[in-house]
Amino acid sequence: MTNKHERLASPMPDVAANGLIDRRALLGRGILFVGAVGTGVGTSLNCAAAEPLAVDPWSMIPGVPIPAYGVPAKYEGKVIRTLTNPNNEPRTSQARTPHHLLDGTITPNGLHFVVARTGFPDIDPSKHRLAIHGLVKQPLVFDLEALARYPKVTRINFVECGGNSAQLYSKDPVQANVQAIHGLLSCSEWTGVRLSTLLDEAGIDPKAKWLLAEGADGPSMNRSIPIAKALDDAMIALYQNGERINPAQGYPMRLLVPGYEGNMNVKWLHRIKLIEEPVMAINETMQYTYQVSGPKIWQFFFPMEVKSFVTHPSPGLTLKGPGFYEISGLAYSGNGRIAKVVVSADGGKTWGQAALDAPVLSKALTRFRMPWRWDGQPVVLQSRAWDEAGNVQPTRADMFVERGEPRGNAGMGHMNVITSWAIDNKGEVKHVYG
Amino acid sequence: MTNKHERLASPMPDVAANGLIDRRALLGRGILFVGAVGTGVGTSLNCAAAEPLAVDPWSMIPGVPIPAYGVPAKYEGKVIRTLTNPNNEPRTSQARTPHHLLDGTITPNGLHFVVARTGFPDIDPSKHRLAIHGLVKQPLVFDLEALARYPKVTRINFVECGGNSAQLYSKDPVQANVQAIHGLLSCSEWTGVRLSTLLDEAGIDPKAKWLLAEGADGPSMNRSIPIAKALDDAMIALYQNGERINPAQGYPMRLLVPGYEGNMNVKWLHRIKLIEEPVMAINETMQYTYQVSGPKIWQFFFPMEVKSFVTHPSPGLTLKGPGFYEISGLAYSGNGRIAKVVVSADGGKTWGQAALDAPVLSKALTRFRMPWRWDGQPVVLQSRAWDEAGNVQPTRADMFVERGEPRGNAGMGHMNVITSWAIDNKGEVKHVYG
Repeated sequence: MTNKHERLASPMPDVAANGLIDRRALLGRGILFVGAVGTGVGTSLNCAAAEPLAVDPWSMIPGVPIPAYGVPAKYEGKVIRTLTNPNNEPRTSQARTPHHLLDGTITPNGLHFVVARTGFPDIDPSKHRLAIHGLVKQPLVFDLEALARYPKVTRINFVECGGNSAQLYSKDPVQANVQAIHGLLSCSEWTGVRLSTLLDEAGIDPKAKWLLAEGADGPSMNRSIPIAKALDDAMIALYQNGERINPAQGYPMRLLVPGYEGNMNVKWLHRIKLIEEPVMAINETMQYTYQVSGPKIWQFFFPMEVKSFVTHPSPGLTLKGPGFYEISGLAYSGNGRIAKVVVSADGGKTWGQAALDAPVLSKALTRFRMPWRWDGQPVVLQSRAWDEAGNVQPTRADMFVERGEPRGNAGMGHMNVITSWAIDNKGEVKHVYG
Repeated sequence: MTNKHERLASPMPDVAANGLIDRRALLGRGILFVGAVGTGVGTSLNCAAAEPLAVDPWSMIPGVPIPAYGVPAKYEGKVIRTLTNPNNEPRTSQARTPHHLLDGTITPNGLHFVVARTGFPDIDPSKHRLAIHGLVKQPLVFDLEALARYPKVTRINFVECGGNSAQLYSKDPVQANVQAIHGLLSCSEWTGVRLSTLLDEAGIDPKAKWLLAEGADGPSMNRSIPIAKALDDAMIALYQNGERINPAQGYPMRLLVPGYEGNMNVKWLHRIKLIEEPVMAINETMQYTYQVSGPKIWQFFFPMEVKSFVTHPSPGLTLKGPGFYEISGLAYSGNGRIAKVVVSADGGKTWGQAALDAPVLSKALTRFRMPWRWDGQPVVLQSRAWDEAGNVQPTRADMFVERGEPRGNAGMGHMNVITSWAIDNKGEVKHVYG
């Protein structure tokens, strides 16, 4: 422990090396940072004894009229998605969520990640139809008005692209921020009709084991989905965070298969066909099929595995001198609730258990938090999550020799290894392999 | 029971008069509406046997480029707030949430209700400061960067204006929709620093029993708040549904006092002063003080009481013929979780228990749902909620002779009586007193 470290010592017990503070010390009231104000911690927190506040210019003039539909403050112009195809060339477009600039667990609709094969279709909702056909007793066609009359349900779920975090397959750590590496992930409150309700209405032929879900976009995105998932928790989602689904997220309706690969949550959904076997769409044979080692592939590999990463601090968010900070980030699993998240400030040698913001929901983003006292020396931050099914987020060593089958360095999906951020003595944050 | 009613009969048991269906019948899978398709229910649900789907024009052309910040579809132009002061004249502006066009429980930031005394101030976040002073051991000033380093917490809470639903004090039922009557109510995921953390940092002088919270807007909105609430669950909120708070909701920071009157959640917060007694601000003496009967007033009457109302169907959402519908709405209490919601289709004579979407959170909107088979005859829909503290939403008779003290017909706040929607045999919905 350095002198500097001692100078910043607080009455709160450390729970792991390099200044991680016991989270329980902060769960109740009455924990004082006071006294710290005179010792340098106050300065580092940029607090100062209060002098009379200057009268700000905006207090002296009438305000701005309230708009009928509000937008973020003009000072938040950097809080946007990054676009891989801004000119909409005839290839896939990706728009990534800026998790390093957000907090909480809900993603605003305007910042939800997008993967689209030709931009988004401009669908007139009064003309849009959803057909359910194939191995059913009674094929049915629904418009929005009909769907509105069915029993609905509201749930908070994340959606993650199967290719999110693929940069971590790179042999050397890619120098990129959390938006570039983990930004194909978002979380919303979704409201819609359970797919099981509509399948009950149509009547399932016992021969049906799969369904084909197809979108009304130009490329007719389609995927095969097991009937069991359809009858479990799949939803025809109509609303996202209270309002109609955003155009780029599937307006006027999308399939939601909670926890499954993003592309299976088919957007602009217009057709569900019950079938005996998967159709072997290009999205499940060429794309979203993963080479493991030698002749082996993983196909129809649906749930996104347990994962976590630190969003604050992260690359681009430079620390301004030693002192107290909060380490926070996101954890989630396609297999259920997050059971535990631990955080390390010494590259994985020692770990402290993070606090989880309530409620911890199944197949939803969970925000974890860990108070931290940085002594100004270089550190490596990591987080690691467990889900309620007992799955643990793998180390890099685990991932590349998983089940005795190294997954190699190819650009594969389902990448969920631990992310490491190195902080140097200037407070700059870089991506490293821990 | 009419012939028409019999024709629409289903195997599901009714739980109350006029077609309310046992919610438990729909909580699992395997409940069939089938067979109904051939009998008229299918027609009323606007389903039809599937023919080959026409190829829609939007499937034949490249899509629209993905924007860096998405907005709702152009077809959703009616899903906006209603404005009482669009020209920003020097008086209070109100913007109301269109609950009849939303579903779920989260309110998108652009549609969160607003009450503002002169529009919203245009605050440069780099120049904004929060001072904590008065009866503290060490006055402190925080900028956004300092606040970002403190332990934070994320919670979903509603905010409701103390004057929401005041139209229900009218002697005769006001002909207005749910947005006009109940639209000064919204719900968000809020993230920020517990006020208790900052007060610990400043050190509370034991003489301090209240605090003054003041905004940086032109009128310097201010309110007195008991220290006990500050130490319980009050928060300096920095993020709303993941992103920085919207300008009209207090950018860059607001006070959040969950469950308390909206105006106490001071927006554009720049000053907290610890004091011995309330300052008797105009917002607590002239406004937000409620005349009860004779010389009696209610003052410093903080929590918004248990309440519910039906959003679907509601005025403006005309039913298109007999058949199945979902009745749904919102319930909430400033005193904790919702314990139970019941729905009536016969003006309060018989009631069925509604399903509540999980998770049911404290001081947050809860969506309730009840399947319903409308026989085409006139009905009166109502909902009634209980909270976990044992409070029950009052009838009109209860409200006006509450505790032996009729609250009269004055334009008062804290109006939480049962709302009644009458549906005539054409399916039109009107506000009535049940």
